[in-house]
Amino acid sequence: MRFTKMHGLGNDYLYIDIRDMADQPDSVWSHYAVLMSDRHFGVGADGIILIARSNVAPVRMRIFNADGSESEMCGNGLRALAKWLFDRGQFQSGQAVETGAGLLYPEIVSQEGGRARIIRVDMGPPRLTRQDMGMTGQPDAHCLEEPLDVNGEVYSMTCVSMGNPHVIIFGPLWDEDIMAKRGAAIEHHPLFSRRTNVHSVEVEDYTHLKIRHWERGAGLTLACGTGVAASTVAAVLTQRTARQVTVSVPGGTLEAMWDEATGHVFLTGPAQEVCEGTFALR
Amino acid sequence: MRFTKMHGLGNDYLYIDIRDMADQPDSVWSHYAVLMSDRHFGVGADGIILIARSNVAPVRMRIFNADGSESEMCGNGLRALAKWLFDRGQFQSGQAVETGAGLLYPEIVSQEGGRARIIRVDMGPPRLTRQDMGMTGQPDAHCLEEPLDVNGEVYSMTCVSMGNPHVIIFGPLWDEDIMAKRGAAIEHHPLFSRRTNVHSVEVEDYTHLKIRHWERGAGLTLACGTGVAASTVAAVLTQRTARQVTVSVPGGTLEAMWDEATGHVFLTGPAQEVCEGTFALR
Repeated sequence: MRFTKMHGLGNDYLYIDIRDMADQPDSVWSHYAVLMSDRHFGVGADGIILIARSNVAPVRMRIFNADGSESEMCGNGLRALAKWLFDRGQFQSGQAVETGAGLLYPEIVSQEGGRARIIRVDMGPPRLTRQDMGMTGQPDAHCLEEPLDVNGEVYSMTCVSMGNPHVIIFGPLWDEDIMAKRGAAIEHHPLFSRRTNVHSVEVEDYTHLKIRHWERGAGLTLACGTGVAASTVAAVLTQRTARQVTVSVPGGTLEAMWDEATGHVFLTGPAQEVCEGTFALR
Repeated sequence: MRFTKMHGLGNDYLYIDIRDMADQPDSVWSHYAVLMSDRHFGVGADGIILIARSNVAPVRMRIFNADGSESEMCGNGLRALAKWLFDRGQFQSGQAVETGAGLLYPEIVSQEGGRARIIRVDMGPPRLTRQDMGMTGQPDAHCLEEPLDVNGEVYSMTCVSMGNPHVIIFGPLWDEDIMAKRGAAIEHHPLFSRRTNVHSVEVEDYTHLKIRHWERGAGLTLACGTGVAASTVAAVLTQRTARQVTVSVPGGTLEAMWDEATGHVFLTGPAQEVCEGTFALR
């Protein structure tokens, strides 16, 4: 099985071009995702991304996580997919990619020697209601700077869904240990019926954010695209920053913009190729 | 840069055949070890193993860890090296390999379709003095079932060096959290001038051990060859088991034997190939 390991800010996937392969049931890909993603017994990655045929676009992206489950979308993964195609002469900047979140149109912002370096991805519009967040309470109410009581400690939280739920807590950046402890507690807080992602966000100035992530089901991660998008929206809504900001996450730096015209959030950042290889099927 | 990812019980290395390459200073390999071993930004492994030319044997093995430091020997790594060579028609069972611990002679115990499955490696003789362990106290005294006080809790420890120091504590297997807490405390106990590896060892019966490892500088690991060897010696010295035992570690199962004739410890176990690939040099 041929693969290419790519990453966007350390969020790493094994890309497999299945366009010329015989169809396989999803259970096969789920199985390979588990085998190949294992960091000691397999190649090692956050999951596998299939480059598949599409009926509605030149190409379709499917994501199977390291635990075998399928995800709709991943901003870091889509940037690297666009790079994979572009570097192989199979992609025009702005062309459609079918994803579980609909058609998306990655743009190659900069390249070097025919290889994409910086890619821009449309993360779609934020959704702000408690219902969108899977929260208890008035379904169509927003949640901006509301107190959140976690075992007697009270935090001010802002909630934004980017298709998946995010709790944003502004203030000095929590260190890893504290993030892990509070992240786990908030993820499983009874307020969130589908659990939640959690982000500690420090506002450095009007155009700079610093974020540490706690991802639902994954824990501390190097970069969470939807979390960066949600945090940018939260910072704008609470009048902390401009609509366009530079965001530092543990894995690197992204540019985020909550576009006034479309209402969509755009993320611009790098993707890199690590290696090409052949997985020994067992 | 071509590589093959292999593992022995989940202890994984990237094998690079440098026999036909121009000589490089060690600092270059140290640099590649760090880059390539990173589990998110690189291929991901515990380190790289160089397959190099030797003046005293058909081949030489060099190990650079994920942190860039060089190791003398690794039993899991040597089994996989023998398999790599054997599967490519470049190894006779029992032939010499030059390592940082001298000449060693891996044996192919079983194969399937021309590919090695089970490999036996000589881990050398144990060393039992406090001096060998880098311990304070009478230099030539042994340390068998002595009390070890860690922050007021007292454990019975047996100490064995296999070139590197190991503290073995017999009893019901410690779970991961407890292993991490006590392992870190014992690793840094003032008794050990060069720090120490720590193993929780449960004797299942006269021929079966179960081990959980805490490796110096690495923490919880899936399999520690020198730790399995040291634990077997400790079990024999304290009359808990036979000289030949089956040992379960988190990454799988090994056969260990403390040979009466040679005084050496032999480990027999599997090695597997995960993938072949080309690392994108940056």
